Amino acid sequence: MDSKEVTFRMATEKDLDSIIQMLSDDVLGSTRERYEQPLPDSYLQAFKSIDSDPNNELVVACYKEEIVGVQQITFIPYLTYQGGWRATIEGVRTAPAVRGKGIGRKLIEWAIERAKERGCHIVQLTTDKKRKDALHFYEQLGFKATHEGMKFHI
Amino acid sequence: MDSKEVTFRMATEKDLDSIIQMLSDDVLGSTRERYEQPLPDSYLQAFKSIDSDPNNELVVACYKEEIVGVQQITFIPYLTYQGGWRATIEGVRTAPAVRGKGIGRKLIEWAIERAKERGCHIVQLTTDKKRKDALHFYEQLGFKATHEGMKFHI
Repeated sequence: MDSKEVTFRMATEKDLDSIIQMLSDDVLGSTRERYEQPLPDSYLQAFKSIDSDPNNELVVACYKEEIVGVQQITFIPYLTYQGGWRATIEGVRTAPAVRGKGIGRKLIEWAIERAKERGCHIVQLTTDKKRKDALHFYEQLGFKATHEGMKFHI
Repeated sequence: MDSKEVTFRMATEKDLDSIIQMLSDDVLGSTRERYEQPLPDSYLQAFKSIDSDPNNELVVACYKEEIVGVQQITFIPYLTYQGGWRATIEGVRTAPAVRGKGIGRKLIEWAIERAKERGCHIVQLTTDKKRKDALHFYEQLGFKATHEGMKFHI
């Protein structure tokens, strides 16, 4: 494949099956997701919540007719930094068949450009310390691991 | 002061001056914020964006007539974890006069309860690695530093 032919757009409900398949086909996702037919309704409900919120964007990378990558960007207004907006990236995944082709890099670069358009001053994300390659990947893109990412499971 | 008398509520525009004063009176915030009269308009604009968004809540801790703590909670729908919602906490601050009185703990406990009410399965936050005490504080509350918190300044 030629990664120059990869395009990016907002996800639609029709993409949901491909997206959930990608989320499931992942070392951590495989223990958390349920990719089955029909898809559990909770995925559709979450998609609708994301899709109807102007501060959430679910972005897919497409190669020809195929969905080969996904990420979610959330735009958040904060009082800190004199009332600055931030973009939070989450759920970045690429299809196994296209790994190593630079799709992940293009996804994040796309998110940074989108964050600029939206007037954000910071792009942020957390990455599981178990994903050893991911830290290096994000550092190469200019991210700095200045913070601890802390989770509390209810 | 008796911390049992501390109450929590959504912030209003009238609280903005006290909140910005707290954000500025902080080792990292002092280099980032501009607490002056009149307040820079960017704070008011950010407040309005937060206040009008049902997925963002700016919460203040009050003791008698005074604002003694603040935090922002953002509720985000995700496809991951079978379409689970998360609560992200940011901008947690307490007034210098009340530090060590358990107000910070009560703020976070309040956020966790609120996250439960909103059907979230994870409460998450990032804390600057320079804030040595904060990591321990959040760990005591049950948070685990499983992730790297990565920032990209535009």
